[in-house]
Amino acid sequence: MSLEITFLGTGSAFPTPARGASALVLRREGQCWLFDCGEGTQTQLMRSHLRAARITKIFITHLHGDHFFGLPGLLCTLSLQSDPDGSKAPVDIYGPLGLRSFLWRSLELSHSQLLFPYTVHELVPTQDQCPAEEFKDFSGWDRGEALPQGPPGRVLHLDPGEDSYLLVEDEQLVVRAFRLFHRVPSFGFVMEEKPRPGKLNVQKLKDLGVQPGPLYGRLKSGTAVVLEDGATVSPWDVLDAPVPGRKVCVLGDCSGPLGDTALRLCWQADLLVHEATLGDSQQDKARQHGHSTPGMAAQLARRCRARRLVLTHFSQRYRPAGHAGHAGHGHAELSELQRQAEAVLDGQEVTLAEDFMTIEIPLKK
Amino acid sequence: MSLEITFLGTGSAFPTPARGASALVLRREGQCWLFDCGEGTQTQLMRSHLRAARITKIFITHLHGDHFFGLPGLLCTLSLQSDPDGSKAPVDIYGPLGLRSFLWRSLELSHSQLLFPYTVHELVPTQDQCPAEEFKDFSGWDRGEALPQGPPGRVLHLDPGEDSYLLVEDEQLVVRAFRLFHRVPSFGFVMEEKPRPGKLNVQKLKDLGVQPGPLYGRLKSGTAVVLEDGATVSPWDVLDAPVPGRKVCVLGDCSGPLGDTALRLCWQADLLVHEATLGDSQQDKARQHGHSTPGMAAQLARRCRARRLVLTHFSQRYRPAGHAGHAGHGHAELSELQRQAEAVLDGQEVTLAEDFMTIEIPLKK
Repeated sequence: MSLEITFLGTGSAFPTPARGASALVLRREGQCWLFDCGEGTQTQLMRSHLRAARITKIFITHLHGDHFFGLPGLLCTLSLQSDPDGSKAPVDIYGPLGLRSFLWRSLELSHSQLLFPYTVHELVPTQDQCPAEEFKDFSGWDRGEALPQGPPGRVLHLDPGEDSYLLVEDEQLVVRAFRLFHRVPSFGFVMEEKPRPGKLNVQKLKDLGVQPGPLYGRLKSGTAVVLEDGATVSPWDVLDAPVPGRKVCVLGDCSGPLGDTALRLCWQADLLVHEATLGDSQQDKARQHGHSTPGMAAQLARRCRARRLVLTHFSQRYRPAGHAGHAGHGHAELSELQRQAEAVLDGQEVTLAEDFMTIEIPLKK
Repeated sequence: MSLEITFLGTGSAFPTPARGASALVLRREGQCWLFDCGEGTQTQLMRSHLRAARITKIFITHLHGDHFFGLPGLLCTLSLQSDPDGSKAPVDIYGPLGLRSFLWRSLELSHSQLLFPYTVHELVPTQDQCPAEEFKDFSGWDRGEALPQGPPGRVLHLDPGEDSYLLVEDEQLVVRAFRLFHRVPSFGFVMEEKPRPGKLNVQKLKDLGVQPGPLYGRLKSGTAVVLEDGATVSPWDVLDAPVPGRKVCVLGDCSGPLGDTALRLCWQADLLVHEATLGDSQQDKARQHGHSTPGMAAQLARRCRARRLVLTHFSQRYRPAGHAGHAGHGHAELSELQRQAEAVLDGQEVTLAEDFMTIEIPLKK
């Protein structure tokens, strides 16, 4: 089962032709999940190999414009391009408190009637996720506003025991959010596949006298079977060890996570996407603005033993190759950012995201 | 004094890589006035030869998302790129009632504090500008909202005598809005330069015995002078006829204007920018959606004797040359749109807008 991540916007603060505003897509089994939706994301989607109509979930890390100003336009375009027969899959949107009111107002003012159901689930941040003077309370903003089409969204409060938010859980996977510290409350998201049952061990089946046929299927699905001779065979007897699922972590803008929960949730992540707005030499400035440097990102990756670190959300001064523009020295500076992160990770390779870069996360064996 | 118009987005409904969402810039004396601001306009500005920092006025024709969803992001980027010393010129924004509340909410939710003053002047539409069932009353949306930085914006009601809205008037020019019929209330804008005084006629000055020097300047500025011999010379005696100013009209989406006011205001416009969303063969569908065809646009241009008609806001099926994409036949269809408009105008050349096309409007002699 393929799992891949595609970056649609890797720049900070605002979109440019060289780096779009924040957005990336996690694609799994043909479904696309969008993380952040800066202005221009719909156009970046058109330029990519992805199909916007496949988006079923959208996660917004925090309420800075370069991470969500593209959302009303994207939803309107999804609606315009959907069949009027209502076959478009519903879209679940997760983001900080206040997002639902913003969307409702934007759609109402622009006379937009979406032709598919969408639901906004709001995460209630805690006050310690940003400097006290920056915290704004958006509860009550939606007073008097009509519900969007579709079922009402959930209001998700921090689970104090888990120190996280449970967003999605089904047979195959679970998605949780955890708290980050930034200029405004920001969140990280962890998508973790549940372990797949191990393979049937044919040699063991033969040894126990289980005949090929329906019994194999029942054992594979985790059910014990009774053989003709009355002996009971348990799945534990004939299945190899479960295969661990994959884990992808996408963090919003931050100067770091709150507490140690991120370490637990991102432990041995197959892919950790972290911002690195400025280089290590500007660490004080980065922290002051609630941002990270490559070294700071790599420290987190090191502590949670992430298998692969991808940096993104670069200051627009860091132009990718082929977009040198006015700065002219973007490329050399980018290599320096990579070196800074790799130094912390003892040389483990670090990836610097560019718009339209796709990274596959292979199945585990 | 140069006057030029640059198209930043010429597509309808949503932005694509081939045609951005609606936006164009009128540049005069180094100042840029932006008409409409669909999503992605700030990136289109970066791709153009224009400097976003030069924008001093923004006009929004109507409240469909493809005409204003780019506004919060553009303002935030203008602020980020402006000097913190407050040297950025104030920005006056004109648009339909409801725009101010949308902007305030978008900036408040995204924790955006603009570093320059801006003022939103709202045009109050009349109910006959759209089908009755589509009309929404956005008065009162801004209840309880704080004022933006800068002076309070005006609330502009239709002047019943003039059947128009007076937006701007100074020594050099006047800007008025007039009403269009669309799915939602839409407006057209007319920028008209005031006539310049005619040239001093040197032969006449000589004949009347006026010596070169300060008297020339006073006559040129419209003041009568008394000569040494006691004779009075009036400016009328020595100035050639005033040189008419230039007139540029930008119409929002519409199936046509309300009444005959547009004919009067756009009379002999040097440039008339009109939408042509669909071809003449789809006129019924166009009207049904409140839109125009090339033939409809040309009829208006013909009736008001516009000197040049430019069509824009094309359905995204009409790809400009070099962007054939899936459709493949966009270019041939575009020629057909041009032919349809030119047929109505007895062969007078009609221009089909493309992104980044610039048209100069020369001074009159």
